[in-house]
Amino acid sequence: MAKIEEAGPGDLTFLANPKYASKLASTQASAVIMNGDLAAPCAVLRSPSPYLTFAKAVALFSPNRPAAPGIHPLASVAADAKVDPTATVGAYAVIGSGVTVGPRTVIHPHVVIDDDATIGADCIVYSHVSIRERCSIGSRVILQNGAVIGSDGYGFAPRPDGTHEKIPQTAPVVIEDDVEIGANTTIDRPALGETRIQAGTKIDNLVQIAHGVVLGKNVLLAAQVGIAGSTVVGDSVMMGGQVGVSGHLEIGERAILAAKTGVTGSLAPGQYMSGYPMMETHEWRRAHVVLRKLPDMRKQLLALEERLKKLEEK
Amino acid sequence: MAKIEEAGPGDLTFLANPKYASKLASTQASAVIMNGDLAAPCAVLRSPSPYLTFAKAVALFSPNRPAAPGIHPLASVAADAKVDPTATVGAYAVIGSGVTVGPRTVIHPHVVIDDDATIGADCIVYSHVSIRERCSIGSRVILQNGAVIGSDGYGFAPRPDGTHEKIPQTAPVVIEDDVEIGANTTIDRPALGETRIQAGTKIDNLVQIAHGVVLGKNVLLAAQVGIAGSTVVGDSVMMGGQVGVSGHLEIGERAILAAKTGVTGSLAPGQYMSGYPMMETHEWRRAHVVLRKLPDMRKQLLALEERLKKLEEK
Amino acid sequence: MAKIEEAGPGDLTFLANPKYASKLASTQASAVIMNGDLAAPCAVLRSPSPYLTFAKAVALFSPNRPAAPGIHPLASVAADAKVDPTATVGAYAVIGSGVTVGPRTVIHPHVVIDDDATIGADCIVYSHVSIRERCSIGSRVILQNGAVIGSDGYGFAPRPDGTHEKIPQTAPVVIEDDVEIGANTTIDRPALGETRIQAGTKIDNLVQIAHGVVLGKNVLLAAQVGIAGSTVVGDSVMMGGQVGVSGHLEIGERAILAAKTGVTGSLAPGQYMSGYPMMETHEWRRAHVVLRKLPDMRKQLLALEERLKKLEEK
Repeated sequence: MAKIEEAGPGDLTFLANPKYASKLASTQASAVIMNGDLAAPCAVLRSPSPYLTFAKAVALFSPNRPAAPGIHPLASVAADAKVDPTATVGAYAVIGSGVTVGPRTVIHPHVVIDDDATIGADCIVYSHVSIRERCSIGSRVILQNGAVIGSDGYGFAPRPDGTHEKIPQTAPVVIEDDVEIGANTTIDRPALGETRIQAGTKIDNLVQIAHGVVLGKNVLLAAQVGIAGSTVVGDSVMMGGQVGVSGHLEIGERAILAAKTGVTGSLAPGQYMSGYPMMETHEWRRAHVVLRKLPDMRKQLLALEERLKKLEEK
Repeated sequence: MAKIEEAGPGDLTFLANPKYASKLASTQASAVIMNGDLAAPCAVLRSPSPYLTFAKAVALFSPNRPAAPGIHPLASVAADAKVDPTATVGAYAVIGSGVTVGPRTVIHPHVVIDDDATIGADCIVYSHVSIRERCSIGSRVILQNGAVIGSDGYGFAPRPDGTHEKIPQTAPVVIEDDVEIGANTTIDRPALGETRIQAGTKIDNLVQIAHGVVLGKNVLLAAQVGIAGSTVVGDSVMMGGQVGVSGHLEIGERAILAAKTGVTGSLAPGQYMSGYPMMETHEWRRAHVVLRKLPDMRKQLLALEERLKKLEEK
Repeated sequence: MAKIEEAGPGDLTFLANPKYASKLASTQASAVIMNGDLAAPCAVLRSPSPYLTFAKAVALFSPNRPAAPGIHPLASVAADAKVDPTATVGAYAVIGSGVTVGPRTVIHPHVVIDDDATIGADCIVYSHVSIRERCSIGSRVILQNGAVIGSDGYGFAPRPDGTHEKIPQTAPVVIEDDVEIGANTTIDRPALGETRIQAGTKIDNLVQIAHGVVLGKNVLLAAQVGIAGSTVVGDSVMMGGQVGVSGHLEIGERAILAAKTGVTGSLAPGQYMSGYPMMETHEWRRAHVVLRKLPDMRKQLLALEERLKKLEEK
């Protein structure tokens, strides 16, 4: 498998974005996955959704070796943990008391699963992931390296002397089926209730999900997004990189937040927002086009005032 | 323990925010922690600070099992490390040469404490925390999963050919008593002097504290804040999520920085800033209300100019 | 070694920034590394680049103990891994099948190197680093604690029902010589091609490098920067903290991006940009000086309109 401009003889490539159609004529690939009726200088695999077919082809040619089932002799598994015999547990992994690990799930080396957490079938948990006590992970979930599931939420009650009393964060994080969580992303547990990531949601690296947040189904969060406590995000919402969302808000389903947006109020379904403070994206674009001209506008304004003054004096 | 709107028979709930007082009448809880003289449909525990009392009640009902003191047989503890017999050291934890661990401190599995670091009494260090060589941690400190204490500061001297010479970062990070550090937060060590987090400061997840920074007492930093090298932050300062602070600044005590603020200059005590470049918050709010109207203002300005021109021609 | 204002008898200090020259007269240091002909109250080590000489002096006086070569008995090294006999492998480190570790490289405890990855000579890999399958690390590379090299890129193909198909990310990350990567920074692998960090580039903590990105030589990225997929960054580019760069862009060599800049388009060599949406820095500064005055400008505009109206009525 190779990109259309880098593929050589023996390679399979794909054409999903019409922007790259011009590269088709000169590709050296032996075969191309594509849509439509364009002519290609090589064998063609027609597909109504070439990007989806490409995804399946990459999986087919994956050089990854399948994990061998079983518990590595250097892993530490509590006597009362229930690890399915088809699951894999790597070296130095720690499986706490009362933990359940489902069929065919692969726990890489150096994963720590604390007491009474559960994890379903066909998951992949990469090295250095922490899953804290009593958290629950569905099936077909992928956790990238260093992700933290169930760290304490940031909850403190101010004392009269300026110091703070910690509110113990003892409720769980629940991650539903088909979720993917990026590397070094952190998902906090709350004091009461739960933090929940619903089915099919995909979260990129270094994202912060605070205590009590609910993410709907099929939400997409790009890297370095931060969502503050108790906010509820609807299904199929998309957030660009470095977006920040305040606490206790409701973000309507299918809302889109451009990269770096600062969300300070709840949103209706389908709203498309940008900037900080946020505006509707078309409004934000117009405002910032003019922002560049602001120094000139100021000069114009002063000149106008001068001219008006002269006129008034006449 | 349950939220006021989710509590059922047998549950204890609380009412701290008057905003939720309307939910009191219909709660199914068996008892409520609250202030004031409102009538409740259940038993009432009166408290002058219900949120503080709630914090204590959550701790009381915590389902967490107490850690058993002692060193796990799969931990690696240097022969000359001094681990208090009442401390707990988990599986695969690494305690380096010359390290001291105080009474009742709990070191979870997969914590690495490098040579000559010290850690006080009654601390909790969660899995995958790194404490680097010669750093010092006080008592009653909580380090969430994956936090890094004492990684090398980002210090390089440019060479004439465009490459960079690393400045070795060998001085320590010092964390005082009653500090909490969030998951995957990073605190860098400097070349000279120290990086210091003073007593009672609470830091959320994914925060970056650069080399030589000093954070005062009872500072609150929300998630994804970044503070550049050698900046000194006063007592009781509060920063919202994703705030960035430049290096070599002084932030006066009790200053408040709204989420996403970009701090490019020093601040006096108590200042409340927003935006990037930062402004006083009230000024920032006014400016951004008008920013939305900027395209209309531009049209108005051009129309005015036209009308003035006509008038001048007469 | 100590700072000029903190140094005492027996200490060596340095003066690199002329701003601090006034502190020279009162320093208690026994010797100072400095440039120029200023008089000092102590011994002087003249150097044409005092900061570079200071870097070398800090290294000379480093209290770090050299690592002893060899594989710790508690490490897990695959039978077919090739670890140079002069390399150090710490406790609980995992070295996968087919991995190569070069001469004098120090692998700290709790590092995981997955199958078929390679790492060159004289590297330092701190605890809790993950190096994923088939990634390649050059020589003299430093990886700070918790860094993740080769996590899956964020690549999904939408299915008609609103769910997403994962595009397997099987291509490697390549890190060239003399690179440093900060604590908890994440560098993703792509589906095809490679992600590449070229020689001499220095990356701070909590940075996100997405799949297929290429960073040129001697690039400097401050903390919490995020670079989206397939962007190509030229040699000697500098980015301040919390900068975000969109995907599929080209950033010309020696471009400078001020902290928090949001880069939404490609840049020519040497451009100096700020803000979001980004502008040339001088333009951005001018626009924001006027932004503060925007509410006043609006009042002025309305007053002008009123006066003009009166004049027109005459």
